[in-house]
Amino acid sequence: MALYQATTSAPVNIAVIKYWGKRDTKLILPTNSSLSVTLDQDDLKATTSSQTDPSFTKDRLWLNGVEEEIKPGSRLATCFEEMRRLRRKVEQSQGEPAISQWFIHVASFNNFPTAAGLASSAAGFAALVSSIAALYKLPNSPSELSLIARQGSGSACRSLFGGFVAWQAGTAADGLDSYAIEVAPREHWPEISAVICVVSDHKKGTSSTAGMQRTVETSTLLQHRIKEVVPQRMTNITKAIKDRDFDTFARITMADSNSFHAVALDTEPPIFYMNDVSRAIVNLIVEYNRASTAAGGPLRAAYTYDAGPNAVIYALKEHIPEIVNLVSHYFPQAESARSPLGAEPLPAGFNANIIVKHEVGAVKNLILTRVGDGPRVLGPEASLLDKTGLPLSTSSS
Amino acid sequence: MALYQATTSAPVNIAVIKYWGKRDTKLILPTNSSLSVTLDQDDLKATTSSQTDPSFTKDRLWLNGVEEEIKPGSRLATCFEEMRRLRRKVEQSQGEPAISQWFIHVASFNNFPTAAGLASSAAGFAALVSSIAALYKLPNSPSELSLIARQGSGSACRSLFGGFVAWQAGTAADGLDSYAIEVAPREHWPEISAVICVVSDHKKGTSSTAGMQRTVETSTLLQHRIKEVVPQRMTNITKAIKDRDFDTFARITMADSNSFHAVALDTEPPIFYMNDVSRAIVNLIVEYNRASTAAGGPLRAAYTYDAGPNAVIYALKEHIPEIVNLVSHYFPQAESARSPLGAEPLPAGFNANIIVKHEVGAVKNLILTRVGDGPRVLGPEASLLDKTGLPLSTSSS
Repeated sequence: MALYQATTSAPVNIAVIKYWGKRDTKLILPTNSSLSVTLDQDDLKATTSSQTDPSFTKDRLWLNGVEEEIKPGSRLATCFEEMRRLRRKVEQSQGEPAISQWFIHVASFNNFPTAAGLASSAAGFAALVSSIAALYKLPNSPSELSLIARQGSGSACRSLFGGFVAWQAGTAADGLDSYAIEVAPREHWPEISAVICVVSDHKKGTSSTAGMQRTVETSTLLQHRIKEVVPQRMTNITKAIKDRDFDTFARITMADSNSFHAVALDTEPPIFYMNDVSRAIVNLIVEYNRASTAAGGPLRAAYTYDAGPNAVIYALKEHIPEIVNLVSHYFPQAESARSPLGAEPLPAGFNANIIVKHEVGAVKNLILTRVGDGPRVLGPEASLLDKTGLPLSTSSS
Repeated sequence: MALYQATTSAPVNIAVIKYWGKRDTKLILPTNSSLSVTLDQDDLKATTSSQTDPSFTKDRLWLNGVEEEIKPGSRLATCFEEMRRLRRKVEQSQGEPAISQWFIHVASFNNFPTAAGLASSAAGFAALVSSIAALYKLPNSPSELSLIARQGSGSACRSLFGGFVAWQAGTAADGLDSYAIEVAPREHWPEISAVICVVSDHKKGTSSTAGMQRTVETSTLLQHRIKEVVPQRMTNITKAIKDRDFDTFARITMADSNSFHAVALDTEPPIFYMNDVSRAIVNLIVEYNRASTAAGGPLRAAYTYDAGPNAVIYALKEHIPEIVNLVSHYFPQAESARSPLGAEPLPAGFNANIIVKHEVGAVKNLILTRVGDGPRVLGPEASLLDKTGLPLSTSSS
C-alpha cells in the first residue's frame, strides 16, 4: 500500500505593522493590512507531519504529543476542509488518486515553549497547511495557501513566506483578496536580526481573539488607526524595506507597536499587554537610539510587542552584540548574571541612569535570531508520525 | 499705614475628561475642552496669602516656606501682570488707590505632599489668583479669573469653581474664550466621592508640560481624539452630571482616562504614566463593576489616572466603604495591613482571583474625599505672611 505522507516546517513571524481587529470573525478577515518579518526556522519553528490512508477512521491531530479534538466548524476543521477542496480540483482536472476522500492524521511540534508567549499558532497553522499541501501535491502558490492558513489563525498567513511579508486586508466579503504576499525575500536584507526578550509575567492576559474584537466594538480610536494611520505606514515601511532603510523601518515599527497597544488600552474594559518590564525595555531602546542619533547616527534598534509582555528587538546584525550586552546588563539572566560579552556593557553616550538594573529573571531569557525563509518540505526521516499514522515520541524530532 | 492683604484657599480638581495638548503654549490654550470634579478643600487644598505694600522692593513668592524665583516672562510673572492689569481697571474706573504700582509678596502652602503626585499646581495657581483678586478687591467673576489662572497652569482654571467644572477650549487666538464654567455646583450631586490611591513609583515620569506637546507633535491618534471623541464625551458627561446618572458618568470617565493614556502611549517616544499597580487597580474596578452589573446593577466606581501612577476612584458615597475595603484587601497599607472595615472585604459576586494580593505599600495610602466647593476667602488669622510681608512658619497654618 502506498504511504501518503509529508513533513514540513514553518517559521514564526513577528509583525511590524500589527494586525488587530477582524471585519469577519468566521473567515478571519482583518480590519487592516499588516506586515511582518519571518524569523529563522533554524531557531524557531513548527514542524508538522501529515498522513492520509483509507484505514483511518477520522481526522486526528496531535500537538506536541497531545491529541487535540477537531471540532466540527472549528478553525482546524475549516483548514482540513479547504485543503481537501483544493485536492479535489487536482483529482478532477488531472486524474490524480482520490485521496481527498480519506481521513488525515497530523502531528505537530513546536521547538519553542508555548509558554514563551510567541505566536505559536501562526507557525503551527502555516506548517499544517504546508504539510497537507505537500501531502496532496498541490500546485497552489504560497499566496493561495495563505488564504487557508488565514482561516486557521489570521497571522498564520504571513508564515507562508520567508523574508518580509504583507497580509493584504482586502475588501471582498468572501475574503479571496485577503492573503499574504512577499514584500522582499530574506536575501534582500539578510542583516535584519532579532533579539526576543522573554519577559516574566504572572498575569493571564486577554486572548488576542477576544481582545481584538472588544477593541473593534468599543475603541473610539481604532477606526482612525485602520483608515488613516495603517495604510500610510504600510506604504512607507514597504519602501523602507525595499530601500534597506533601517532608520525608517525602526521608526515605523516602534510607532505601530505603540499604536496597537494604544488602541488596546482604548478598549472597554482596557487591555494591557505590556508590563513594567516591557516598558523598561522600551526606555532602554529609546535611550540607545537617542545616544546613537545624538552622535549623528541613525536609529539602531526597534522594539515591538505583540499581545503579551515579551519584547522583540529588531536591529542590523552588526549591532546585536551591543544590544545583547545592554539588555543583559539591565535585565540579568538567571544563568549569566554578568554581561555575556565582556566588561563594558554600555555603548558610547548611553545614559546609564535611564533605567534601574532589574533583578535576575525579570527577563527570563533571550532568543537571538534573524530574518528567515518560508516553509520547508522535509524528508521522510523527519516524520513525526509512524507508519501506522500514530505520533512518534516528540523527543525524536 | 493700611495693611493690604488677603488669604484664600483653593481646591484640587481631578479631570474626568482629560486636558492633554496645547494649541498655544504661551497662553496655555488647550487642544480640547476638559471637565473635572472639584475635590473638598477640607481634605486637600492650597492656601495662599498675598500682601502689597509700597515698602516692598520686588515681587516675591514662597511655596511651602521656600522662596521661588519669579523669572521675567514666566507663568508666575504673567499671573502677577494680569492681576495688576485688572486692578488698574478698577483704579481707573472707580478711583480706588493705585496699589497696583506696588510689589506683592505671596506665601502659599499645600496641605498635601507634592510627592503624592497630585496636581498641586492647579490648586496653587487657583489660590494665587483668588488671593490677589481678594487683595485687589476685584469685581471679576470666577470665569474671568480663570482666564488668568489658566496662564499659570492650564488645569488651574478649573479650580476657580466648586462642583463640576468645564474648561471650554475656545477657538480665539487671544484665548479670551478659553475659560472655566460651572457645569453644576457641589450641592447638585453631593454624593460624588473619591478615593485617591497613592501608588509607589520609583521612576521619574515625563512632565505633563513636555509630554503633552510631544503627543501633539507625534501622535497619529490625538487629532481624532480632539476632533471627534472629546466633543461628544463633553456633551454626554455634562448630561450625565445634570441627570445624576452615575453609570454614564463612570463609563465616560474611565473611557476618557483610557483614551488619554492611549494617546500618551501613541507618542514618539511613548509616554507611560500608569504602572503595574495602576493597572491592577483598573482590573479591580473592572471586576467590581462587572460583579455589580452581572447582578443587574449599575457601574459603581470609575477609575481615572492623571500624568502619574495614582488612581482616583470616583463613586457614590454609599459605596465608598466597600471600595476602601476592597482596595485595602488587595493593596494593604503599611499602617493597616488588615481590612479597615471588618473581615469581609469582597462584595457579592466579586471574583477573588481577578488580581493578586499585593505586598504592603504598593499603594502607599488612601485619601478619602468628595466633591467640594470653590476658592474660599479666609480671615486675617489664616495669613501665611507676617505684618512685614515675610512668611510665617508653615507649621502655623
